[in-house]
Formats: sequence, C-alpha cells, structure tokens
Amino acid sequence: MRLATLADRAVLLVGDGAVDIATASHGRFGSDPMQLLAEWDEFVAWAGQAELPAATPYRETDLNAPVPRPRQVFAVALNYRPHAAEAGYVAPEIPLLFTKFPSCITGPHAEVELPDGNVDWELEMVAVIGRACHRVPAAEAWEVVAGLTVGQDLSERRLQLTGKPAQFSLGKSYPGFGPTGPALVTPDELADRDDLAIECLLNGESVQGARTSEMIFSVPRLIEFISAVCPLHPGDLIFTGTPSGVGNRRVPQRFLGPDDILVSRIEGLGELRQTFRSDPEALRPASA
Amino acid sequence: MRLATLADRAVLLVGDGAVDIATASHGRFGSDPMQLLAEWDEFVAWAGQAELPAATPYRETDLNAPVPRPRQVFAVALNYRPHAAEAGYVAPEIPLLFTKFPSCITGPHAEVELPDGNVDWELEMVAVIGRACHRVPAAEAWEVVAGLTVGQDLSERRLQLTGKPAQFSLGKSYPGFGPTGPALVTPDELADRDDLAIECLLNGESVQGARTSEMIFSVPRLIEFISAVCPLHPGDLIFTGTPSGVGNRRVPQRFLGPDDILVSRIEGLGELRQTFRSDPEALRPASA
Repeated sequence: MRLATLADRAVLLVGDGAVDIATASHGRFGSDPMQLLAEWDEFVAWAGQAELPAATPYRETDLNAPVPRPRQVFAVALNYRPHAAEAGYVAPEIPLLFTKFPSCITGPHAEVELPDGNVDWELEMVAVIGRACHRVPAAEAWEVVAGLTVGQDLSERRLQLTGKPAQFSLGKSYPGFGPTGPALVTPDELADRDDLAIECLLNGESVQGARTSEMIFSVPRLIEFISAVCPLHPGDLIFTGTPSGVGNRRVPQRFLGPDDILVSRIEGLGELRQTFRSDPEALRPASA
Repeated sequence: MRLATLADRAVLLVGDGAVDIATASHGRFGSDPMQLLAEWDEFVAWAGQAELPAATPYRETDLNAPVPRPRQVFAVALNYRPHAAEAGYVAPEIPLLFTKFPSCITGPHAEVELPDGNVDWELEMVAVIGRACHRVPAAEAWEVVAGLTVGQDLSERRLQLTGKPAQFSLGKSYPGFGPTGPALVTPDELADRDDLAIECLLNGESVQGARTSEMIFSVPRLIEFISAVCPLHPGDLIFTGTPSGVGNRRVPQRFLGPDDILVSRIEGLGELRQTFRSDPEALRPASA
C-alpha cells in the first residue's frame, strides 16, 4: 500500500492514479493523513478488503508530505560508517539523536529557498511510526512501523556546525529542509525492507549511493533505542541517517545553488525531486 | 491572566480558584488548551471583558501541563555565563538549540520515574508562543509570546553526554523530564518580564538561583534567532536555559534519587514540585 497526501487529502496511490480515501471509505476515514495514522490498524484492515473505485490521474507536483504534522521527528547522525569517516568521526557506539524541527517538513517536490550559508544534501530513509508504543524490543519493532518513505535531511552547514558543543538541529530546520515522500510505503510492498538501494543525484550525477542494510543501527535497533526513552506516537518520523557523499566533505566542497536539481531515490519507495532558489529574505540568524 | 490545565480542561486561575473556560465562554472556546492558543488573540480579547463566574477550589496536584501538546520544543544550552563556565565551555556567541522531544512534557506536580543513570536538575523559564510567526525582529518579539511558565529541563547526564559529537536531546526526553507549569502567565501580570528571580530547591536547599535578566540571550533575542530559521506555531515552547548549580558539576557530584523533592520557582510564575521514584523498567537504552 502506498499512502500519500494529494493537496491536503489522504489518498492511496494505485498504478498511475490516486484514490481518495475519505470518498472510497464513505467517510469511515477522513481526509487527514494524521487521523489515518492514529487509526492505523483499522485503516490497514479496511484497505486490505475494500473494493476501491478506479484511480484517477494526478500530478506528482501536487503531492505533499505523507505525514504533514509529525509530533516528533527523530534524526540519526553518522549511521553509515563511510559517512562517519568522511565527517571525521569514529563510528558511533550508540545512535546519536537530534531533531529536525517539524516546521521544516514538506512534500516530495517542494522548491526550497536557500538561506545564506552552505546548504548540503543528505539522502535518508525515513521510518513512519504507526502505533503508540514505548520500550519496544528490536525483534518486535517492525510491528510498530506503518511504513517507509524517502527523506532529505537538508543541512546548512555553517549554522549546524557552529557552537561548542555543536547542536545539529536548527541548521537542519529551515523551511523546506525536510522533504519527504512521495508516499508512505508499507513494508509488505518491498522485496527486503532491511536492504534497499538508496541513491542521491545532483543534476543527474550520482553523489550518494549505498544500501540501507549498511546502516550501523537498523530500523529495528533505532526503534528499540529511541523507544527505550521516548514513547512514540503514530506519525512520528525517524530519519535514519545519510550515507557518504555529502558536499561538505568533498574536495573541493560543493553546496546547493539556484537551479540545481536534487533527486533522492530509494528502491521501492520512489523519489523526491528538489529545486532551489535564492531567498534574499532568508538570512542566516547572525543578529543574536 | 493565568491559564492552566485542570485535568484535561483549560481553566483560568483566579485567586485561589479555577474558572472553566469552555463553561464560562458558553462554548465560544473549547476545553482544549491547544485550541485556545491557536485562537490566542480572540481568547485574550474575550478574557479581557468577560464576566467570569466565581472561581471554584482545585487541587494543585490536578494541574497538568499548560501546553500539553506543543508542536515544537526549542531548548537553549549554556544561556547563563556561570553555567557555561561550570560546564566547561566558553559562553556561546549564538544560541545553541536542541530539543526536548515533546513526549517528555508533563505538568507541574508529576512524579518522575528515574531511569538508570545520573538524573540532574535544570530550572528554566519557558516562553510559550501565541501567534504563528516567522522572522520576528527582537523589538517585536514579545508580541508573539502568549506567556511564560516554569520548566525543568531534567537531564540524564550519561546519555546526554555520550557520543561524539554529543547530541543533548534524547537524554533530556525521558517521560516526565519536561515538567511545566503551574500556569501560562501573561507578561502583563509581571513586574518586569525581562528580570525575574529564578530559584531551584532540592529538599529545601537552594541549589540554583539567578535572575532571568542574566541570560546571555534574552527571550526577544532567542525568538529573533529561532524564528529566523523556523516558522513558529502557537503553543511552541522555548526552554530558555538554566543557571549554574546543576548537580553534574558539583564536587562531589549530586544527582536525583528516590524521595528527593525538587521545587522550581520563578518570581510571579509560581512553582513546580517534582518527586522521584526508581523505575526498574526504565533502563538506559544500552542494547542498541
């Protein structure tokens, strides 16, 4: 099942078309994707047996974030060994958690305004929580996952890395810095939910490539670790970390500029496509 | 005006009693504090001219978080010079932002389960946003503040400080690690919203004491800095940083244990009162 948000309504993507869920369920489920996630088990049961009407065509650029208003966004630093190495760190022994403040979450095709600074790419797989849970053992962790989606952890490096001790969250939270989508894909749609090819292309050139099986901490181990501390809610997001190949660590360094096209794709999940433009109003907050 | 949450209903605290807002407004406003914040200007206008019914007695232990479901929780590290010094850092040149994941937010009198580890106190003033805003100049920042409240940024130091680069957020986000309250107090109730005495007492002994005017970055400067990056929503919280006197930096170190009583008070805002108990189920997430 592929659950998406078309304009502001929850839809199922079927073939090349979309089915409006509120209409197809005769109002049993509403149009708000967050409400579907809050009733995830009931929704999955309905979707498994529903006779859906014919899917209608849609424009990909009308898709918005499949989870538009997550209550909690967890993000993992340095979860691929080659990326930890390129960033100048040893591979972590426990997951390092920061947040992307939820106001940065957008859809798969949003144009991103570039603030002053050095904006870098970080392709990541994102896990979406589907059940309220706490203290989940890794062996049971896939049971609390509604699905997976593609994410970009766009990062303004100067703000991210300024300050001692550096706190990553704010520099990764400008508007549009958390593109997600195109759909929440349930794991049963995937050949191997623990081993997906992941690739990021800048203007057609492959800049990041890996497999999610290379993550130091897998989705189940991340959920075990995070939920040992925090109760998780339906719709919470976990950005699972980026592979090597970011622009900040290239020689010479390379950052995103106007007219760049960034495509982020994960096997079986689809792809994001970001364009960028300069925003003269979006200054780095240097005035404090 | 003092806005609080009694059980799960928004109330005004008047004298020693509480007035139920949904009842007093004949349904113009509902019982959900988050909805009041979303209609803050209208609510303030109503409250300023409403003829309220007599306030009824309540138990302080029935108060819950005045903002129970914030969308974004910003927290500031090292915002008092003596605390930056005791923590071994130079005073920061820009605010250092992390989060307390919202699932940790509780009310003013919640008992806190102690996980394995070293749990420390951090009294902080908390600013509550009352208007959707973005890129707010410091000179206009108080206009977007609904009010102030008392907060504790409880912190399990081992998890907080483990990892390179250390990311503070998860170790500060166990259930109950974000007590807030007793009420959201509008700034007009305060003698000087920029200069309030702030004091934390452990078993009756003063362990932290300062004035909020000593903050390196004032509430307006924090709002300017954060909102230069993130759009802010009504109900977003800003934990503004703790003064010196935390247990981690004492000789010998001192951490919270069962039967400790922690009182956190700010002039004009009221006080929090936390008790603690060991939780054999709440293990430090060492398994990942």
